[in-house]
Amino acid sequence: MNDLIARLRTRLGAAHVLTGEDAAPWARDWTGDYAGAPLAVVRPADRDEVAAVLWLAADFQVPVVPVAGNTGLNGGAIAPGAIALSVARLNRIREIRPESRLAVVGAGVIVEALDQAAAEHGLCFPLFFGAAGSAMIGGVLSTNAGGSNVLRYGTTRALCLGLEAVLPDGRILDLMTGLNKDNTGFDLRDLMIGAEGQLGIITAAVMRLHPRPVERATAMVALDGLAQAPALLTALQDASGNEVAAFEYMPRAYIEHARALFPQMREPFEAPAPVNLLVEVQARRIGQAGAALEEVLGQWLEAGRIADAVIAQSEAQRREMWALREASAEIVFCRHPVIDTDIALPLDLVEAFLTRIEPLIQQVDPGCESLAVAHLGDGNIHFNVWLTREDAALAEALRETIDRLVVGMGGTFSAEHGIGIAKRQSMARFKDPVALDLMRSIKQLLDPAGLLNPGKTLP
Amino acid sequence: MNDLIARLRTRLGAAHVLTGEDAAPWARDWTGDYAGAPLAVVRPADRDEVAAVLWLAADFQVPVVPVAGNTGLNGGAIAPGAIALSVARLNRIREIRPESRLAVVGAGVIVEALDQAAAEHGLCFPLFFGAAGSAMIGGVLSTNAGGSNVLRYGTTRALCLGLEAVLPDGRILDLMTGLNKDNTGFDLRDLMIGAEGQLGIITAAVMRLHPRPVERATAMVALDGLAQAPALLTALQDASGNEVAAFEYMPRAYIEHARALFPQMREPFEAPAPVNLLVEVQARRIGQAGAALEEVLGQWLEAGRIADAVIAQSEAQRREMWALREASAEIVFCRHPVIDTDIALPLDLVEAFLTRIEPLIQQVDPGCESLAVAHLGDGNIHFNVWLTREDAALAEALRETIDRLVVGMGGTFSAEHGIGIAKRQSMARFKDPVALDLMRSIKQLLDPAGLLNPGKTLP
Repeated sequence: MNDLIARLRTRLGAAHVLTGEDAAPWARDWTGDYAGAPLAVVRPADRDEVAAVLWLAADFQVPVVPVAGNTGLNGGAIAPGAIALSVARLNRIREIRPESRLAVVGAGVIVEALDQAAAEHGLCFPLFFGAAGSAMIGGVLSTNAGGSNVLRYGTTRALCLGLEAVLPDGRILDLMTGLNKDNTGFDLRDLMIGAEGQLGIITAAVMRLHPRPVERATAMVALDGLAQAPALLTALQDASGNEVAAFEYMPRAYIEHARALFPQMREPFEAPAPVNLLVEVQARRIGQAGAALEEVLGQWLEAGRIADAVIAQSEAQRREMWALREASAEIVFCRHPVIDTDIALPLDLVEAFLTRIEPLIQQVDPGCESLAVAHLGDGNIHFNVWLTREDAALAEALRETIDRLVVGMGGTFSAEHGIGIAKRQSMARFKDPVALDLMRSIKQLLDPAGLLNPGKTLP
Repeated sequence: MNDLIARLRTRLGAAHVLTGEDAAPWARDWTGDYAGAPLAVVRPADRDEVAAVLWLAADFQVPVVPVAGNTGLNGGAIAPGAIALSVARLNRIREIRPESRLAVVGAGVIVEALDQAAAEHGLCFPLFFGAAGSAMIGGVLSTNAGGSNVLRYGTTRALCLGLEAVLPDGRILDLMTGLNKDNTGFDLRDLMIGAEGQLGIITAAVMRLHPRPVERATAMVALDGLAQAPALLTALQDASGNEVAAFEYMPRAYIEHARALFPQMREPFEAPAPVNLLVEVQARRIGQAGAALEEVLGQWLEAGRIADAVIAQSEAQRREMWALREASAEIVFCRHPVIDTDIALPLDLVEAFLTRIEPLIQQVDPGCESLAVAHLGDGNIHFNVWLTREDAALAEALRETIDRLVVGMGGTFSAEHGIGIAKRQSMARFKDPVALDLMRSIKQLLDPAGLLNPGKTLP
C-alpha cells in the first residue's frame, strides 16, 4: 500500500494525500455511529485527478469512497481501509447564468454558498436543511437530499439539470446540459443522482436556481392533534397560490428535548401545545405572504380549529423558530444508542402511523423512547428511537418494526437520507425484489470489481 | 409464425390478436413518414398478459414493440414484422386520491381523459399538447412528452411519482409509490421514463395531479422581433407569481400556413406581426391572472416594447388562439418530404439560432422552406424544413446541419419528442460517447436478445 500512497502523492501532490493523524477527521462520521479509518484521504483538484485516483485504486484493488460534506446520517461516506476521495477542492462556482436561472458548479461547492452566490442575482438555491452550511453539491446529489423546502421546490433531483461523473473505470460521463427539456436517450442523470456513489463520482453539476422570494412569512401554530393538519396545509396552499415553503411538525416531547439541550430556546406558546407546526409561506410581492398567513390563521383561530398561532414579527423571531426545528439532528444524536429514520407516508396517514407505532416498539424494546419530528407537508417523518441498551439485533428489530408498519401503510423506509450502511437490511426486506436485482445488475455492469463505495446501499 | 399467433390467441383471446386487414391501422404512423406492417397487433388486458406476450415472443425470437396512442412523431412505435403490443386496454383510472393529489392509472389511459377525471376533484393533469386527446399515459411516459405547459409543470417525468413495468424477461418491476419523497436505491423509475420502450413496457403509473387553476388569462402578443421576448416572460412571471402556463411562438409564416390550411382561422392582429406570441397566465384566485396579464401588457404597449396585444375575452376566443397554435402538427405534416425537429436552446439564444440557421440550410438544399413554431418559454423550437425533393441523404444532411448548430450553441437535438427512428443518427453524432456506450450496455443488460423495440433510440 505504501506504493499506492506514493503514486497518489506523485499524481495529486503530497499536500492532497492525507494519512495517519491528518486523515483522522474522516475516520468517524458526524453521528458518531459509523467509524473506520481510511487508508488515505485524497483531495483531487479536478475530474482528471478523480479519474487518476480511480485508475490507481483499481491497480491496487483498493476501494474508493467518495466523500463530500460528511454530513450524511447513514454511514454512506465512511471508508474503512479505503481511499476516501474528498470532492472538497472541486469547489468552484464556475458560472451563474441569471437569465437561464442556473448555476454551473463543482461537486465541492457548499449548499449554502451556492444560495448566497445566487442571492447576488436575485435568485436562490432553495435546498435547505440543518447541515446546509457544510453539505456539498456532490453529497446532496448522491443522496438526493431533501429537507424543509421540498414541498415547494422538490428534492435535489428536481434542482439538477445536468451533471458530470467519473465512472468506476475512469471514463467521464458528460451530461452537463442546462436545458429544461432534453430527451436524448436513457436518463443517466437521474441514475447517478441518489446512487450514493455506487455508480460513479459526481464531479460537477448544472443546478437550477429559482427567483428569490422577496417575502417570507413564518409562524408557529399550536394544535391539539394532527387531524386538522392536512386541511390547514391545503388552506395555506390555496391562500398563497401554492407558495407554502415549509410545513414542519414538532410534538410536545420534541420541544422539551430541544429546551433541555439548548436552554436559551423558548417555549413557543404560553400554553404548551401537543402539536407545534412551523409554517412558512413565501411570496414574490411584498405583503402577499404575510396576508395569506394572517388570513388563514385568523380564520382558523376564530373557528377554534387551531389552539394558538404566533407569526414572526422580525427576522430574529423567524430565526428563533427555525433554530428550534433545525436542532433536530443534535437532539437526536446527543444520546445513544439511537436509531434515526426518514420514513414517509401519505400525509393523511401520519397521525395513524404515530398512534399505531408506539405500542409496537414498546413490545420490541420495553422502555425505549421515541421522538418524532417531521417535514409534515411531505409526509416525511424522522421517527427516532432511543434504545434501552446497546444491542445491534435489538436496533435492527426496531427498525424492522417501524419499516414494516410504514411499508404496510403505503409508505417508504427512506424518503430523503438514502440507504448507506444503516438501511441495507431494510432494502433487503422491503424493496421490490425485481428492483433490487436490477440495481445489483446495474452496479455489476458499471463497477464489476466492486471497488466504488462497497458495502453500502445494496444489501 | 402461425404457431405463435395461435398461442397468442389462446392466451389473450382471439379478439385481441389482430392480423391482416385488422392490423392495418398499425402499419403506418400518424406522420405518414414511417411504415411497416406488424406481424400481429396484440391487446393484453393486464400486466400478466403483457408478460405472457413477451415470453411467447421470446420463444419465437420475434420482436415486440409497445404501442400506445400512436401519436409519436419519430417512428418509435412502428413495428415492421414484429408484435405490436397495444396498451389500449390497460385503460382504467384505478383511483384518484384528491387529498394526495395523485391518480393511479393504467398505461392505456388517454391523457385528456385523466385531466377530465381530475377535474371532478378540482384538480388537473396538466400535460397538454395537440394530441392529448389520443396520446396515452404509457406513451407520454415512454417519450417523456413535453408540450405547452412544461414551463409551469415540467415534463411527464415531473408528473410521475411511480410506475410499473414488465421487463423484457417478463418480470414485473413494481415501483408504484405515490410518495413525493422516496430514496430507496437507484432511480429505476426515471430510467424507464423516456426509454422509449427499450428497457421494459410500462403498464401502470402513479401520476401527480395539480390544483386546477380557477382562472386562465390568454393573450396574443405582437412583437417586431424575438429580442424582447425573454424580458416579457420574466415580467409575466414576476407579475403572476410564476404562473405563466404557456409562452408560445408563432412567426408570420406560421400564421400564413395555418390560414392557408384552415381558412376559418383568423389573422390575430390588424397589422400582421412578424412575431406572434400566445401567452397564458393562470391563477387559483379569480381575477389574479387577468390582472397580471393586463398590467404587464398594458405597460409594455405604453412603452412601445410590444406592437399589439389581444386578451381573450371569452373561452371561445381563448380556444381560437389555441387552435392556431395546436394546428402545428397538421401544418407541418400536410406537405412532404419534411423533417421535423424538437430542438431546444437557452431561451436567449433562440433568435440568434433562427437567424444563423437559415443560410446554412439553404446551402444544403437551396430552395427548401423552413417553418419554426416554439414552446418559447422552454427554448424549445420545432424547426421544420420542407425539402425540395425526396432524398434520404439530403434529409439527413439537413438534420445534421440543424443539430450541429444547436449543439454548438449549447442546445439539444431532442427536447421532447424522443429519438425513435428519426434521430438515431443525431444520437450517433452528438450524444456524449460515454453516455451512448452506457445506454447500450444497459440495453444489453436488460434485453440481451434485443427483442424489445429494436432499431430505435440507440444508433
